[in-house]
Amino acid sequence: MSFEDQLRATSVEIGTATINVLNQLPESEILHAMAHAMNGGKRLRGYLVIESAGLFGVPRTVTIQAAVAIECLHAYSLVHDDLPTMDDDDLRRGQPTVHVKWDDATAILAGDALQTLAFEVLGGLDASGDVRAALILSLAKASGAAGMVLGQAQDIAAETARERLSLDEITALQANKTGALIRWSAEAGAILGQGDKTALTRYATALGLAFQIADDLLDVTGDEAQTGKRVGKDAGAGKATFVDHLGVNGARTRAEELVNEAVSALESFDARADGLRDAARFVVERRF
Amino acid sequence: MSFEDQLRATSVEIGTATINVLNQLPESEILHAMAHAMNGGKRLRGYLVIESAGLFGVPRTVTIQAAVAIECLHAYSLVHDDLPTMDDDDLRRGQPTVHVKWDDATAILAGDALQTLAFEVLGGLDASGDVRAALILSLAKASGAAGMVLGQAQDIAAETARERLSLDEITALQANKTGALIRWSAEAGAILGQGDKTALTRYATALGLAFQIADDLLDVTGDEAQTGKRVGKDAGAGKATFVDHLGVNGARTRAEELVNEAVSALESFDARADGLRDAARFVVERRF
Repeated sequence: MSFEDQLRATSVEIGTATINVLNQLPESEILHAMAHAMNGGKRLRGYLVIESAGLFGVPRTVTIQAAVAIECLHAYSLVHDDLPTMDDDDLRRGQPTVHVKWDDATAILAGDALQTLAFEVLGGLDASGDVRAALILSLAKASGAAGMVLGQAQDIAAETARERLSLDEITALQANKTGALIRWSAEAGAILGQGDKTALTRYATALGLAFQIADDLLDVTGDEAQTGKRVGKDAGAGKATFVDHLGVNGARTRAEELVNEAVSALESFDARADGLRDAARFVVERRF
Repeated sequence: MSFEDQLRATSVEIGTATINVLNQLPESEILHAMAHAMNGGKRLRGYLVIESAGLFGVPRTVTIQAAVAIECLHAYSLVHDDLPTMDDDDLRRGQPTVHVKWDDATAILAGDALQTLAFEVLGGLDASGDVRAALILSLAKASGAAGMVLGQAQDIAAETARERLSLDEITALQANKTGALIRWSAEAGAILGQGDKTALTRYATALGLAFQIADDLLDVTGDEAQTGKRVGKDAGAGKATFVDHLGVNGARTRAEELVNEAVSALESFDARADGLRDAARFVVERRF
């Protein structure tokens, strides 16, 4: 099975578990909007949770739930980021964004409830209280005002800043905005399995940055039909990206270096880490 | 000390602990907006956490942190509810709302990060993993798409509905919108102390409804300088309230019945429950 097929199969598995979680909630328009926001996508973060947990022998039924949680958290961030007052995106995963299909109020509430649901799913995991609390605490740190939300605020501020961001500033911004959740996803396996997360942290830090550089490249060279979202947005918004600083070829080289760094961080693991190794290569080769 | 003085003293104590929590986060505009949103207020939910935990001998240092968490969650809901696309309020706790003082994007992000912070604080509580996870799971259920967010969505839908809500529908809506967090606040003490929460659930269910009826009365009879928020909003928004159905005197009578119900739910507790008894009486007598 090719890596893309494997990723797709895991995505379907997480998608099915997501529907089961959503079905526990009372029928409402908000619930439909949440389901819409959770529909589709590569579910790469969920894949990282499952593969990293596999290194520590965590039961798959448990890791699937943790994967659902991180995808809820990620979906909430997309729904809010897509709002007109934020990034103003009308297309996501090939579908109209929540505020386009419903309205801004519904998008705000659906995003709010998706964030809550992430913590609800982790709180109800079939694991010890200490493991559940540790997962929740680390996800909150990664996604809040010291992590993802801080990165999103820095990103919005950069649009109106007089000077364009330096490479170091973009790197720091992206480590918060997209890096923190990717890091959590890879570390979650070690937390679930109560193992050492050092190697996974190194892996995910390099992977997260490679992912963002690839995203910047896709914004320049990508195709809307394949990415399922608008391209060419960064230039339009006057945002400085890795491509601006490094050029297309320089950015590709840097992303490949980071992938090698990510793969070498996994050297102490046997073939069970091949899924993570493949994910790192996929991240820079992907067209979506 | 009068009850109002006691509530004010506890509010100050929670406020100080809140500042300490916020000071752990990196400096940013979002952080300032979060601090603004957390500033002031009666902090009644936090008071309920502290008083209910007092029944079970939970250390005050721990309960103060749980009180900070519920106040973060409550503040997030206010910041988002106040947005122009939601209830469109410009005044809160006597201060301009976050989107007025900053902008909509900052208000969305600050609300998002306040929700996250609530779970972070509970995740980091000095309590067993099981207790922390139980508090988080119950707060998530109370505040998400089966609780507070559902109630807010029902409230927005009611504004544009053709028929005005029945008394039963308003009661169900408010049990979600404001009742769920008040219930969690009173139950949190029992969860922290690993005691029986039956009596506290009965108490808080009656209290939550009394609180909302009193809120509807304040919207009709209250004073902006005292309440610190706009009054007369419900009539302007065409919302059916308890006062519409019961009249001012009927609503007062109903609220008083509920307070008696709340107080009688506490009969198995000794004088240590006096703070909760006083809180119930305060809820219908308050002018703010």
